[in-house]
Amino acid sequence: MKKIKVGVAGYGVIGQRLADGVVRQGDMELVGIVDLEPTLSIRALKEKGMPYNLYLVDGADRTKFDRLGIPVSGSFGDLLGKVDIMLDSAPGGVGAKNKMLYEKAGVKAIFQGGEKNSVADVFFHGYANYEKGLGADYLKLTSCNTTGLIRSVDCLDRRYGVDRVAITIIRRVADPGDYHRGLTNALQIDKAPSHQAVDLMTIMPHIQATGILVHTPVTHGHIITVVAHGRNGKITREQALEAFRGHERIRVVRIDDGFLGNASFFRYARDLGNPRGDMYEIGLWEDSIVESGDDIMYAINIPQESVTIPETIDAVRAALRMQPDSKSGTAKTNGFLGLGGWK
Amino acid sequence: MKKIKVGVAGYGVIGQRLADGVVRQGDMELVGIVDLEPTLSIRALKEKGMPYNLYLVDGADRTKFDRLGIPVSGSFGDLLGKVDIMLDSAPGGVGAKNKMLYEKAGVKAIFQGGEKNSVADVFFHGYANYEKGLGADYLKLTSCNTTGLIRSVDCLDRRYGVDRVAITIIRRVADPGDYHRGLTNALQIDKAPSHQAVDLMTIMPHIQATGILVHTPVTHGHIITVVAHGRNGKITREQALEAFRGHERIRVVRIDDGFLGNASFFRYARDLGNPRGDMYEIGLWEDSIVESGDDIMYAINIPQESVTIPETIDAVRAALRMQPDSKSGTAKTNGFLGLGGWK
Amino acid sequence: MKKIKVGVAGYGVIGQRLADGVVRQGDMELVGIVDLEPTLSIRALKEKGMPYNLYLVDGADRTKFDRLGIPVSGSFGDLLGKVDIMLDSAPGGVGAKNKMLYEKAGVKAIFQGGEKNSVADVFFHGYANYEKGLGADYLKLTSCNTTGLIRSVDCLDRRYGVDRVAITIIRRVADPGDYHRGLTNALQIDKAPSHQAVDLMTIMPHIQATGILVHTPVTHGHIITVVAHGRNGKITREQALEAFRGHERIRVVRIDDGFLGNASFFRYARDLGNPRGDMYEIGLWEDSIVESGDDIMYAINIPQESVTIPETIDAVRAALRMQPDSKSGTAKTNGFLGLGGWK
Amino acid sequence: MKKIKVGVAGYGVIGQRLADGVVRQGDMELVGIVDLEPTLSIRALKEKGMPYNLYLVDGADRTKFDRLGIPVSGSFGDLLGKVDIMLDSAPGGVGAKNKMLYEKAGVKAIFQGGEKNSVADVFFHGYANYEKGLGADYLKLTSCNTTGLIRSVDCLDRRYGVDRVAITIIRRVADPGDYHRGLTNALQIDKAPSHQAVDLMTIMPHIQATGILVHTPVTHGHIITVVAHGRNGKITREQALEAFRGHERIRVVRIDDGFLGNASFFRYARDLGNPRGDMYEIGLWEDSIVESGDDIMYAINIPQESVTIPETIDAVRAALRMQPDSKSGTAKTNGFLGLGGWK
Repeated sequence: MKKIKVGVAGYGVIGQRLADGVVRQGDMELVGIVDLEPTLSIRALKEKGMPYNLYLVDGADRTKFDRLGIPVSGSFGDLLGKVDIMLDSAPGGVGAKNKMLYEKAGVKAIFQGGEKNSVADVFFHGYANYEKGLGADYLKLTSCNTTGLIRSVDCLDRRYGVDRVAITIIRRVADPGDYHRGLTNALQIDKAPSHQAVDLMTIMPHIQATGILVHTPVTHGHIITVVAHGRNGKITREQALEAFRGHERIRVVRIDDGFLGNASFFRYARDLGNPRGDMYEIGLWEDSIVESGDDIMYAINIPQESVTIPETIDAVRAALRMQPDSKSGTAKTNGFLGLGGWK
Repeated sequence: MKKIKVGVAGYGVIGQRLADGVVRQGDMELVGIVDLEPTLSIRALKEKGMPYNLYLVDGADRTKFDRLGIPVSGSFGDLLGKVDIMLDSAPGGVGAKNKMLYEKAGVKAIFQGGEKNSVADVFFHGYANYEKGLGADYLKLTSCNTTGLIRSVDCLDRRYGVDRVAITIIRRVADPGDYHRGLTNALQIDKAPSHQAVDLMTIMPHIQATGILVHTPVTHGHIITVVAHGRNGKITREQALEAFRGHERIRVVRIDDGFLGNASFFRYARDLGNPRGDMYEIGLWEDSIVESGDDIMYAINIPQESVTIPETIDAVRAALRMQPDSKSGTAKTNGFLGLGGWK
Repeated sequence: MKKIKVGVAGYGVIGQRLADGVVRQGDMELVGIVDLEPTLSIRALKEKGMPYNLYLVDGADRTKFDRLGIPVSGSFGDLLGKVDIMLDSAPGGVGAKNKMLYEKAGVKAIFQGGEKNSVADVFFHGYANYEKGLGADYLKLTSCNTTGLIRSVDCLDRRYGVDRVAITIIRRVADPGDYHRGLTNALQIDKAPSHQAVDLMTIMPHIQATGILVHTPVTHGHIITVVAHGRNGKITREQALEAFRGHERIRVVRIDDGFLGNASFFRYARDLGNPRGDMYEIGLWEDSIVESGDDIMYAINIPQESVTIPETIDAVRAALRMQPDSKSGTAKTNGFLGLGGWK
Repeated sequence: MKKIKVGVAGYGVIGQRLADGVVRQGDMELVGIVDLEPTLSIRALKEKGMPYNLYLVDGADRTKFDRLGIPVSGSFGDLLGKVDIMLDSAPGGVGAKNKMLYEKAGVKAIFQGGEKNSVADVFFHGYANYEKGLGADYLKLTSCNTTGLIRSVDCLDRRYGVDRVAITIIRRVADPGDYHRGLTNALQIDKAPSHQAVDLMTIMPHIQATGILVHTPVTHGHIITVVAHGRNGKITREQALEAFRGHERIRVVRIDDGFLGNASFFRYARDLGNPRGDMYEIGLWEDSIVESGDDIMYAINIPQESVTIPETIDAVRAALRMQPDSKSGTAKTNGFLGLGGWK
């Protein structure tokens, strides 16, 4: 069978992980990546022996790469001539410009959460609305928090029905290695409602959602608390736990086992030998699930660097009609990424 | 009129502020404070010229104080012979031992949140259950988070009726100047439900409450998000805002005015010239109030070092029947502390 | 005796403290402060009842102030017509523009460390080169780190002779209440040599200096380690200690007394009741002083928000020839600020 | 050729990395690891399919492991019967107890920096005193900071001669995933001189050293500034740079290339695909090297979790006389770990 040819634009925090994720798909081929500068990530690629081919965007200074002995395989345009679909993880706003190139080259594309919704035909989540993405040319993924949040809400909704959620996002403010943004000894609040609550309603219009977001000075993952109301009456702690445990992209953990906070998932992923210490699953604390009237409340952990990778791969499957529905599409992605296999 | 004679046991973070607060009450007199070691706080008291008399607990090494030229006014027992009531802010667990001394000396006492509920006859909040404390010998204050939380929930409940709340506590992990506890680049989660939700139900038994607590590596105040359900139907944003604005111990602020997070309150209190940069009021962000169905959601800021001072003063008023009800008791405290005057 | 009339341009972190410091000088009068926006600091001034008169820079929108009921006393130009000297603590770069106004109005001015050296006739430190500032029209203060560093190096140099220093600056990255800058879980290094070492050589040209600066994610004061070489042979630990103890703007402290780090000074200043929890003195740890060959090494703490205030007041004294030399000028400032009185 | 049989006691932060490092040595075999509890690290080992055999210390509750389906290969004693040498990375103090078991079993051992020097016959560093370790039964490695520091000082000393160093250690206070220790918004200072300076003099007795250590609230590596004095006159910046560039366990980097601080090394190692995001090399900033008189000053980065692994492997080579001297011993280790190959 012919493999789908994929390119990645922007080899930063997300782009590197998209490239790694594509390489693990037996039915996809990573043709190359595109960037502008010999960043640390590109230098690391070179030190590793250039496992991925590098293409340069227009305006890049090729002599910088030559001087460092970094091989260049061609231009952005060259890459577009060889791929079926682009995964665009360029800095926020650049994706909208890149789209003109994709349209001209007749190449599909999937954008990340940093772009405006208007860049795409479909605002996409692998579980919650896979079918809307079928055959679409331009899709935009939900942001990291929304992606993880919807996994958990969709999981309950699919089984028991949910009609209302109120979320509190305790947001990490930077990624490990970031110096250009940061917060020191402060919690910073955004105007409510948070965009994640609004985005959830766009993807799952039958649910009413609101939320508050607070930035915190840490780097290893967001924590979200969710108060969910059952559409068909009370969802019990046991029911919720059973649903969460069966989800391939949710890791149910316990504080007593050593999962004391967001940094434990990072520590555990490093100990597992996962590349970059990454985890695709969201974490969900069994000890956080509590009932209150018809509401059920719980807390999840969002590994912001890697959580959107599986759903982005799902989007490729939908856009190219590789699998017909959410169930088969996500199952294929999960299989290649080894998700759920640890259960 | 004879002033009520008050002593403070434990001159630490809370004890210093209790002493300062008592001194501002026109109808109370601070007889002295009790401590064990010449801590930095005691050394600062000496450098200021000993505005408060120092008494030593049994077991304290008086020569340490003599060597530093710190005047000592007598023993714990000496102080107990001169006071009507003790404010006990000794380290957690020590208060229970001190209680035996108070009982022997026939002195009333008010304990802080670090002690077990069983140490006291009444678990107290100045607004929510002042009347239960009338004439009681031993009262325990709610903890800093619970004190601030109840201010806001009671404020809504009194006006509109509340029957259910779900809280997320984004907790500061240490006070400025703490080295013995801390957290570095991690969010740490506690088992749910948080004690603050349980304590709220003890004080306000007609409300059903649950909550999740997450520790964050900051020092300038907790942030709590509250999802509250109206007992008598929807509470609108405007209704909530009106109630909050009228409360003497709540400061309603806006992000656009510069209150970007918890550290803004600290900055503002320093700029106000408040002693120690303290603030007695909780902060409440106007921009955080959102409706969702019959639920109303909002975020408050808890200045952990000073928030319980007013309610502790209220407890003195209740225990000694200085004022007959919550309205008159809290009004007296607010008047002496200048609360609400800025509105 | 006629008091010197002083104005302050820019009522931010430094400007507020300059204003407070001027007010404490028996021979100076604070005529007013200048700002552009109703910042939190201006709002706090209003809540305090406008103890200082507010003037507006050209371009300020007066209606914003009117709407908030903040009284305005006039324009920047109005203030310049009433003062002998301006303390300029406007944001970096703005001071250079303000200078044109000062020149036009024939008013002297003292700039803070954020401006370029070229803005001033003299790069000034109250102890190390007071005499160079005598009668000067435009002076620039050393930055917070350099000010504190020079205090300690000048203290040793004056007594024993120093000819070489190597410094490591462990820099706080933001002030309490800052959100616009920050660093999260990282130490960031600057290119060497640090400007503080270069500035020290400008002020004290007989000393050879170099240094490395590392930013750290904290807010309560810089720590600098100093390796100093005696020009006239070894400086012993005892000699250094004696000199440091005699300095009015240096607090010699011990770890065992509770001064465990930079945050202890902040905690102590709050407990002292110092306005804003500020401290004018640098801290110096007795337990950090170690000898190594002819080198002596020690660590100091720099309270970045307030450390330059005394030396700025010194600069007023020099510029207006209020006192003829460093000894009498700094003594006058110290007297009014209560420095050294605690010894 | 028969491979040396190695065991690892304590599968924590260091133990895991020792095990991984041994496995990469072509002339060594990892027989197994020893632990007490089914920690997250042991659970991760199980999820990975038990690539290493697990033995239990006396007192471990085997049923806990059985319940989790974690295979156990035997007791600590069983393992001791199969190995030539143990790498002991048990918690501080436990190693001293384990030593009795090693003596009884006639097995050599190498302890980490957390143990007292008296536990071992030789206090060891692979470059600075390899020869002292030849044939020794019990060796103790220098701590992480001292190991990295000595690499750089030995590098200069070997080429040009060094007789005096003064260090400032800007220490990370916890590892990623730690909750049991932490520091929040504070820099904490230790009494001087720091143990690392004292340890350096023990290993390199011809050098006089002193230093000050400051703890900072970060997790990704210590930064040390070093002021070194040439024994044979000035060491120039160019000389130092040439020596550092030639060292297999030192990475010379530049700020302009993106190595802005300690977290950049972690980020780069993750991008390199290094297991756990680890780096064995210390980092050294080219832009930090400055001359001052006969002194040369520079800054290094210490990856605390992994830096001692190569020198511990060197210690195995020395203890078992696998290679006769520092040059051949370290070269063998470097070869298997791929150190220097990137240059």
